[in-house]
Amino acid sequence: MNAEIVSVGNELLNGRKVNSNASFMAASLAGIGIKVVRVTACSDEESEICQVLDESLRRSEFVLVTGGLGPTADDRTKKAVLKLLQRGLVFDAPAYENLATRMKRFGREISPSLHDQAMVIEGSTVIPNTRGTAAGMILSCGEPYANHSLVLMPGVPAEMKAMMELTVLPFLEGHSATVIIQTPVKSVGIGETTLSELIADVEDSLPDGTTLAYLPHAAGVDLIVNTIGTDREWAERDNRNVVEAVLLRAGRFVYATTERTFEETIGEMLTASGMTVATAESCTGGLVASRLTDVSGSSAYFLQGFVVYSNRAKESALGVPGELIEKHGAVSEEVARAMALGCLEKSGAELALSTTGIAGPAGGMTEKPVGMLCLALAEKATGKVRSKTLYMHGDRALNKLRFSQAVLRELWEYLRDMQQG
Amino acid sequence: MNAEIVSVGNELLNGRKVNSNASFMAASLAGIGIKVVRVTACSDEESEICQVLDESLRRSEFVLVTGGLGPTADDRTKKAVLKLLQRGLVFDAPAYENLATRMKRFGREISPSLHDQAMVIEGSTVIPNTRGTAAGMILSCGEPYANHSLVLMPGVPAEMKAMMELTVLPFLEGHSATVIIQTPVKSVGIGETTLSELIADVEDSLPDGTTLAYLPHAAGVDLIVNTIGTDREWAERDNRNVVEAVLLRAGRFVYATTERTFEETIGEMLTASGMTVATAESCTGGLVASRLTDVSGSSAYFLQGFVVYSNRAKESALGVPGELIEKHGAVSEEVARAMALGCLEKSGAELALSTTGIAGPAGGMTEKPVGMLCLALAEKATGKVRSKTLYMHGDRALNKLRFSQAVLRELWEYLRDMQQG
Repeated sequence: MNAEIVSVGNELLNGRKVNSNASFMAASLAGIGIKVVRVTACSDEESEICQVLDESLRRSEFVLVTGGLGPTADDRTKKAVLKLLQRGLVFDAPAYENLATRMKRFGREISPSLHDQAMVIEGSTVIPNTRGTAAGMILSCGEPYANHSLVLMPGVPAEMKAMMELTVLPFLEGHSATVIIQTPVKSVGIGETTLSELIADVEDSLPDGTTLAYLPHAAGVDLIVNTIGTDREWAERDNRNVVEAVLLRAGRFVYATTERTFEETIGEMLTASGMTVATAESCTGGLVASRLTDVSGSSAYFLQGFVVYSNRAKESALGVPGELIEKHGAVSEEVARAMALGCLEKSGAELALSTTGIAGPAGGMTEKPVGMLCLALAEKATGKVRSKTLYMHGDRALNKLRFSQAVLRELWEYLRDMQQG
Repeated sequence: MNAEIVSVGNELLNGRKVNSNASFMAASLAGIGIKVVRVTACSDEESEICQVLDESLRRSEFVLVTGGLGPTADDRTKKAVLKLLQRGLVFDAPAYENLATRMKRFGREISPSLHDQAMVIEGSTVIPNTRGTAAGMILSCGEPYANHSLVLMPGVPAEMKAMMELTVLPFLEGHSATVIIQTPVKSVGIGETTLSELIADVEDSLPDGTTLAYLPHAAGVDLIVNTIGTDREWAERDNRNVVEAVLLRAGRFVYATTERTFEETIGEMLTASGMTVATAESCTGGLVASRLTDVSGSSAYFLQGFVVYSNRAKESALGVPGELIEKHGAVSEEVARAMALGCLEKSGAELALSTTGIAGPAGGMTEKPVGMLCLALAEKATGKVRSKTLYMHGDRALNKLRFSQAVLRELWEYLRDMQQG
């Protein structure tokens, strides 16, 4: 069962856009045992789309196409497919309903181009668009292409992802005979090299069909344990054994073996402990609060955040003494501790996190370089405060992300130690 | 002058890696007037590499390949090219020297595989590798391929980038006769469809060689005006004329015609006006503050942020009257206005932004559905407050992003109107 991905759009050929849609689709297909044998990006010229689709459909059973389905003149995928398959268009009432409803909801007028957008290729199964206007389509391409199938989706990532999850993957899953079991082992606070050294013996004795892939990113390393087989029970058992062997060696760095995010993990631990949290941020500028509140239901445990960029704000909002800032500098563990304690008091939360540092690129000094972070975690029950100084080496955006990760890790470790009594 | 990019590696077909190498190469080639007509990612099977290279070399004058040049068993690009072009290998002394020097520098032994790595394809120009071990190659592929050229580089981004900059781009520049001018026209507050209707007459009368591409994303639409020509002056003039025609019709939605971000644009306007800003956020959870502080130097105009998730925090941190929340609900323009005014007072800033809404997926009601946002902007000088209620239709992450975009747009429009007097 082979598939190909065709990504239509000039922006992929002039370097304006990275083809992350293709990666998402490829990973999703791998998850249901379908192998992607080629990814092609082509321009939005009609003749070029025709040529690429013709070649791909001859080679592979499923060709998934994104882009070129919108209402503007440079959206030519539908036209190219009409020409290639010699088909006509038909009006799709549900697609039109969806369009009209969305337009009304946004208070827009029903423009004449709306009717065009609800025209789909004859013989296609329409993929509803729950996130936008252009409908997707699944088509069997008939004899010239050995009944291979074409799946057309818009290039807007949110629309494509919703279509994949709700319609395309369930449709394709019915066609797949192999089983792929993938378990993510999500870690923080350990690098790729150290992790691979810790689990070297596991990696040297993997069962047949099981592989490990390291996905390092700014906030940690995800290790993917991947098992391919024909028998679901055997594949699941092999996969579980490897995951357990990894946990035995590196478990103290692992926060999840599911698709749960770090923020969700922390949220569940806070909920379980019944504790509330507040934040006092300087260098992270609100990112820690924003990440904590990325979780639905976070209002149950996240009470309040302070973004105190200026010294004046640190004093007025959190009661950090001016003399303390004067004496140690705004970027110091002393100030981080005072921020966390002030945050406890002002918010009424049981736990408070604070950050003060230099995200850069400007503002660094010899003793306090760009990338320096002081963080603190204060606990209301005991009045205790932990603090740390760390050094990162990224650009501004990466430093902000790593700073926020460091203080969230402090919180995670605190909650884990508490759980384990 | 057409080029293609071929990216070799299984990690690109199973979704483990995003093909950012291809974007970098495509952007670099566009910069010297070479048009990329196709990007293909294929597996590291020898037969598959052969097939893809054969097709690409027939179509395009330059085929740039990354990946599969390393020393391990799954690096098969060199073998595939030997087979395809029926050539042999020759020993390259400078490549061997480079390898041996690097090995010594890292304290590694000179392994027997080192000699293999210094073998290059006969008739090729060697591309020195200043960042790693595997040498790159430029080959003219002879008669079967109309003397089209093949450029082989490693897949490690740093090695490929150094080769592109030091050797490949200077080599290709000598062959390029075309000029490409690209201008981004970055807009907010208008959809792709409406924008294309506004500028329909411009699109219908584009000069030869100029095309428009729409790049819609969660925070707005980027319109790319792209001109290809042989004469730089003419191409620049055509491009400028189209950009100006677009601005004449849709200028009120455009914040930049350069690569500047929305946050940077707002930062420059705040700096120019000498005004300071503070934020009071409920549903955006700190994201507005975090976006404003993504800009280096933002401490000059961003004073302070309040993340007031709970009603208690709205009262204690910003002095929002409890009765007001009781009467109108926390998600109401009344509360948004009171938050912005409280934020002005507590922060001492000249401008204050506020958000209160329902990001979802939980927490919606019939009268106040998920996606509802109330925002306000308060001005110290006059005591005036503007407020708005909007409705979005995304998941939690998308709603948070669109909420933050809506309130930043309010600020941008305020600053623009002020500038224009």
